[in-house]
Amino acid sequence: MSLFKQLLPLEQVLISIREHFPGPGPLTMEDVNPLEALGRVLARKVVAPHDLPGFRRATVDGYAVRAADVARARDGEPVYLKLRGEVVMGQLPGFTLAAGEAAVIPTGGAVPPGADVVVMLEHTNLYPGEVEILKGAAQGTNIIEANDDVCQGQMVFAPHMFVRPEHVGFLCAMGVQRIPVKAPLRAVVFSTGDEIVPWHQTLAMGQVRDANGPMLAAALTGDGCQATYGGILSDDLEIVKKALKDSVERADIILISGGSSVGKGDVTAAAIQSLGPPGVLVHGVAIKPGKPTIIGKSHGGVPVLGMPGNPVSAQVIYKLIVRSILHRLLTGKDMPPQGTIAAILDRSLKGPSGRSEYVRVRLEQRADKFYAVPVLGESGLLSTLALADGIIMIPLNVVGLEAGEVVEVTPLGQGLS
Amino acid sequence: MSLFKQLLPLEQVLISIREHFPGPGPLTMEDVNPLEALGRVLARKVVAPHDLPGFRRATVDGYAVRAADVARARDGEPVYLKLRGEVVMGQLPGFTLAAGEAAVIPTGGAVPPGADVVVMLEHTNLYPGEVEILKGAAQGTNIIEANDDVCQGQMVFAPHMFVRPEHVGFLCAMGVQRIPVKAPLRAVVFSTGDEIVPWHQTLAMGQVRDANGPMLAAALTGDGCQATYGGILSDDLEIVKKALKDSVERADIILISGGSSVGKGDVTAAAIQSLGPPGVLVHGVAIKPGKPTIIGKSHGGVPVLGMPGNPVSAQVIYKLIVRSILHRLLTGKDMPPQGTIAAILDRSLKGPSGRSEYVRVRLEQRADKFYAVPVLGESGLLSTLALADGIIMIPLNVVGLEAGEVVEVTPLGQGLS
Repeated sequence: MSLFKQLLPLEQVLISIREHFPGPGPLTMEDVNPLEALGRVLARKVVAPHDLPGFRRATVDGYAVRAADVARARDGEPVYLKLRGEVVMGQLPGFTLAAGEAAVIPTGGAVPPGADVVVMLEHTNLYPGEVEILKGAAQGTNIIEANDDVCQGQMVFAPHMFVRPEHVGFLCAMGVQRIPVKAPLRAVVFSTGDEIVPWHQTLAMGQVRDANGPMLAAALTGDGCQATYGGILSDDLEIVKKALKDSVERADIILISGGSSVGKGDVTAAAIQSLGPPGVLVHGVAIKPGKPTIIGKSHGGVPVLGMPGNPVSAQVIYKLIVRSILHRLLTGKDMPPQGTIAAILDRSLKGPSGRSEYVRVRLEQRADKFYAVPVLGESGLLSTLALADGIIMIPLNVVGLEAGEVVEVTPLGQGLS
Repeated sequence: MSLFKQLLPLEQVLISIREHFPGPGPLTMEDVNPLEALGRVLARKVVAPHDLPGFRRATVDGYAVRAADVARARDGEPVYLKLRGEVVMGQLPGFTLAAGEAAVIPTGGAVPPGADVVVMLEHTNLYPGEVEILKGAAQGTNIIEANDDVCQGQMVFAPHMFVRPEHVGFLCAMGVQRIPVKAPLRAVVFSTGDEIVPWHQTLAMGQVRDANGPMLAAALTGDGCQATYGGILSDDLEIVKKALKDSVERADIILISGGSSVGKGDVTAAAIQSLGPPGVLVHGVAIKPGKPTIIGKSHGGVPVLGMPGNPVSAQVIYKLIVRSILHRLLTGKDMPPQGTIAAILDRSLKGPSGRSEYVRVRLEQRADKFYAVPVLGESGLLSTLALADGIIMIPLNVVGLEAGEVVEVTPLGQGLS
């Protein structure tokens, strides 16, 4: 029984990922409308089809006037202008404002030709047929010019960007009808193990149902992939090799769960090797839990990961490593930093020697403070998966963390947050 | 032109939400399988249908033995046991281990009857027909008992919980076939304004396309709602009243965009009032941008929100207020804390008097530090929406924030993070 020769620290794993999977890959594109683009990744830049707002708009309720007419207006020395008309929302004014005239204008209304400033309602009084201006304003005040928001032809979105709700709104405002987005990444998940049966199956003694396969498929789905569950493979090199060979042509990423510990891992590693060169890039990471992770790359450039069989380990490796690869494939960039919640550690924790350790915690609010309560239990226990709200990290080569110290909790995603 | 009488600070807005929308509402349920449950909210608790793992399992590769047989084994004084057989993965051993015997067992294998400890492979040597045990171990070592993970009948998930990928895996492992989840919240979004036209329409001069309606519908969709875009309503009390009346019976939450500033807001407020009592609960919040927000409640208990017309304001109010309401309706709890990224503020910012201010920032990495660079521009400009990575808060009654100080950035959600 061989031991792992060299455990690679996470930092170096991420450098290796950056080198071997620089991305963004030459993925299939599809054209969608702005509403369908939510959560997708732009395949090309987006250019503004015309100016925005497209006409001169008032930013306040008030009167459109000529700046020269109101320049001298001040407290006690008002200026009186003739009421020329009213700007109706959604319509171009049917008149040009002449010197000495004012027009009623609502927020968002089109400033009539001739006017070059909008005086706020608060600085005016209306009398029959005329308007008293109590305070002047400089040319352009309270007006958005036709191209102040966006100029026609301007790049408004860079390629390889994830589309958020506010981007959907912006695309709609510009009247963009179709945008090219990348097809979802095609992910295939296999489980291995002679004792593993599908989740919908009744157990014989000695068997367990597959937890990691569905968990990983769900995680990939949640991250926008088109995830296919490839089923359960026997711990047999030829079977695993054939399954990988059959799926590598129609996948952007492949995960093999459960066959990556030493011994079992030899089958997974050999099967990945058979897809190369380069084949296996990393075998064993300095992460607890998660040591027996394999990262490989097929000859065609598809990432193939041997995921640890323990569900908690698989969860940690998914978050730290798999998502980094997905991000590079889609955007060509590293994962952006993740938000954390500062919390007080509820009990002291010893660190492991030579590996960074990820500890699951519950978040408990006591008075106005949050406490991080470690969830104990081996990484093979599924029940502990359900109890955690987040994860804290004990860095490599640190003796441990003391109860009472402030730790940064990475939330596992509780609902809408 | 009246001013807002009283601007409610966010803290008090959230208290009002807690009081008026305690949740979880009596929502429709549906039964789904574990894979379909991702991102849904459990309608009832989930109870384990049987013990997990369901049989005694080895947690290491080694030999199943009787603890009494190996108690005296130590360095230089090994114990020799007869090799009885081998445990095959996924099968119950066909033999009972007698005194003086050992059986080969792989990690995850079923411990044979008679054995009560598994000795690690590293502490053994195999000879023809017998095993040398170099080191004893206490009863139960390296064994998970049949109900160590979960006991039959134990509540494994509380109701009103969001289902994450690891929960899907756990449900699969337990063989849960169908689980009751809540139907998605039915959200209806209206836009108002005589100058607003649908996003797919060509503009006449003076018109603008609807940005907020699609943005809010997309945000609700992203949060798991079944969002319906109700279209654009004229700024007319009777029309808005009728639209609300027609939709309040088939909605769990209603958002009206763009008609909530003073003047325009009178129409929205009056229309919401017509659905009461209680009708309008909050009119005006001490949040910048977002002041002209209205929170109302129909007689039947449906939240109806008047959203500010400026897109940036609508974005902020959605994140701070709408999501809090969604969370209460689904779970009966406050929004959990959100993760933040510590960053160095790139330039000083003045705070507004009497309102907490939310400033959009770009995150820039320089060397190994993150900087928060404020995105400038009025809240009416759509282009600024595309530039921000996150939001920072300047608390109520603070003079401002200084360049160089560390601020907490709430990410807007960049891709997978």
